[in-house]
Amino acid sequence: MVIVQKFGGTSVGDLDRIQNVANRVAKTKEEGHDVVVVVSAMSGETNKLVGYAEHFSQNPSKPEMDMLLSSGERVTASLLSIALQEMGYKACAMTGRKAGILTDNLHTKARIEEIDPEVMNSSLKEGKIVVVAGFQGVNENGDVTTLGRGGSDLSAVAIAGALKADLCEIYTDVSGIFTTDPRIEPKAKKLEKISYDEMLELASLGAKVLQNRSVELAKKLNVNLVTRTSFSDEEGTLITKEENIMEKPLVSGIALDKNQARISLIGVSDRPGIASDIFTKLAKAEVNVDMIIQNRAHGGTTNIDFTVPKGDLNDAKEVVGDFLKEGDLENDVYNENICKVSVVGVGMKSHAGVAAKAFQTMANENININMISTSEIKISMVIDEKYAELAVRGLHDAYELDK
Amino acid sequence: MVIVQKFGGTSVGDLDRIQNVANRVAKTKEEGHDVVVVVSAMSGETNKLVGYAEHFSQNPSKPEMDMLLSSGERVTASLLSIALQEMGYKACAMTGRKAGILTDNLHTKARIEEIDPEVMNSSLKEGKIVVVAGFQGVNENGDVTTLGRGGSDLSAVAIAGALKADLCEIYTDVSGIFTTDPRIEPKAKKLEKISYDEMLELASLGAKVLQNRSVELAKKLNVNLVTRTSFSDEEGTLITKEENIMEKPLVSGIALDKNQARISLIGVSDRPGIASDIFTKLAKAEVNVDMIIQNRAHGGTTNIDFTVPKGDLNDAKEVVGDFLKEGDLENDVYNENICKVSVVGVGMKSHAGVAAKAFQTMANENININMISTSEIKISMVIDEKYAELAVRGLHDAYELDK
Repeated sequence: MVIVQKFGGTSVGDLDRIQNVANRVAKTKEEGHDVVVVVSAMSGETNKLVGYAEHFSQNPSKPEMDMLLSSGERVTASLLSIALQEMGYKACAMTGRKAGILTDNLHTKARIEEIDPEVMNSSLKEGKIVVVAGFQGVNENGDVTTLGRGGSDLSAVAIAGALKADLCEIYTDVSGIFTTDPRIEPKAKKLEKISYDEMLELASLGAKVLQNRSVELAKKLNVNLVTRTSFSDEEGTLITKEENIMEKPLVSGIALDKNQARISLIGVSDRPGIASDIFTKLAKAEVNVDMIIQNRAHGGTTNIDFTVPKGDLNDAKEVVGDFLKEGDLENDVYNENICKVSVVGVGMKSHAGVAAKAFQTMANENININMISTSEIKISMVIDEKYAELAVRGLHDAYELDK
Repeated sequence: MVIVQKFGGTSVGDLDRIQNVANRVAKTKEEGHDVVVVVSAMSGETNKLVGYAEHFSQNPSKPEMDMLLSSGERVTASLLSIALQEMGYKACAMTGRKAGILTDNLHTKARIEEIDPEVMNSSLKEGKIVVVAGFQGVNENGDVTTLGRGGSDLSAVAIAGALKADLCEIYTDVSGIFTTDPRIEPKAKKLEKISYDEMLELASLGAKVLQNRSVELAKKLNVNLVTRTSFSDEEGTLITKEENIMEKPLVSGIALDKNQARISLIGVSDRPGIASDIFTKLAKAEVNVDMIIQNRAHGGTTNIDFTVPKGDLNDAKEVVGDFLKEGDLENDVYNENICKVSVVGVGMKSHAGVAAKAFQTMANENININMISTSEIKISMVIDEKYAELAVRGLHDAYELDK
């Protein structure tokens, strides 16, 4: 098999841990696989370099930041390759450039446009373990670019796609994806397999093990993704195509998002296009609107409720304030003490009654549901924040996820 | 003017010092010059990275070492460019690759083969200050290479040559080249100008301010080199073509080299080619032989005396030992308690009596001269190490270098 293994900053946090990573990579090689390793900077390094830059400027130029920040991954990749060579393996360290990673020109948050796998492939053919500096590529001018937060995961997934690898293993300090946050529900179980779409919906689960960008890319490139821990041999969770999952569970997990605020626009004037105006202006202000509910109210006006991440609340207030001044609405009410609980599962598509059970569970616990939104594989409910844990445990129990 | 300024590890040793460098560069730019800055890694960084590599291997692979070590200069170059931009200057950081530095394939001690100055030139034309990561280039495969010890100086000189710069300033913690080591002779004076050849002969002076490789390259490329301190505005020493020095001093300086050992081969058999055999084998063992003197001794044999750096003495002993076993010589004697004192000056070429004054000075101080070797611009004498400082002061005085 061709296996891509990605190790994050904590996994390569010091020299001993880099040696541990070398041992693990060597073991995979000994099992007869072709191995490409993608590494992040040693933990703390990137933040240190960002701190250096901020010493000089609050808004340092992005091409310079890319040249600065890309150095951390080069260090780790060189050291890991040296460690593997010392153990008697053929290995070779590659920068993003050498690995053939071409990106667009958006310095500090570039997107991978293309990977030319030729150099990696010919090194693999020579029996070498290929060690790639993650998080980086080059643009068409040949200048180094970086991929932004979670960039090394993206490097690994994109490389796995380009090499048509059988597996892309993402090693972190978390052992996989759980049915819900084990800190809330100790009975939470680790999932063996999960589909890309479920993973995307469950993004808030599992301590942000994977960013959505990486899962989306894996889905697009059809890469079998595994998240597992680098600190033990425990098996992780496979994230794959729905077709690869034989037994489709009704519900795979319960996600909780406490980082939401609710905005209620009361008495919105009933002229055509007003909702469009409001949400267009919010989008321009880069406010991420999640759920939206509109009710016709009395007297020819409507009420519109929507949720935004707490961090976007101030920007949203400004936009809404303008409409208030123009007399387009009567009143605005904000509530930060809410949370969103979601029930996720591909089995929902073909089973009725899943939503009913969720609502019944809330009713049994006397939890009032503020807003509801559903998709093919998800039911989301906005409730008072104080009921967050109670709701998660109730739902975990109701769908028998501990079984 | 086009000015290349190079700042070593101590000059960019911390963030405040990098800011000081930015201020100095800005001042040069304000004076109306085009400025290219070449920087080393922050002091300690390269040693730290070497230490990391040695944690894994006593003999780490050289391409990996180049990828590892080249990261330090990238950090400094990015930070300096950010600092300059924050001060309102147009600046741009470049890796060795971006600056067009092509080297041979000798990883960890590559030689610059060619510099394509196009990218640097067009940035200068846009009014930008160009900040180049020193010590590095790329080979014809596009892999990063490093230039070995003193590599950033070489980068600076080669860039100055490629840009036809008017001046290449090397900033260190030493204020210039002195007539002799001021720790030995407090009356030593800083030289305003000195020729390349004198500088090469005086290499042991001035606390190894410049490596011979850099001076040789400057001579070859006809680059006006200035060594000066980054810690004050004091003028440095200009190293230039002999033709550019109007008043040619008889003697420019007195050099002292305590790192020499003397090897005496006694009763060397008088067969043809024996000397050639010995020195060929020494060369193969990478022993750097400096002075050689051969005397015909009694009984058809000869004596050969030569000096080597103390660090090469053991290797030399091994080679000599083989000839002793073979009966090619009667005896070998080693003396580490010697030193080499040299009188250097381009004026010697056209003046007689310079050597006589040196020998007279030694005689006046009752110092016995062991070996003598002369070149067009230098007289070297091997004497007992205990007379080293006495000889230097005597010669400094005799040639009136404090005037």
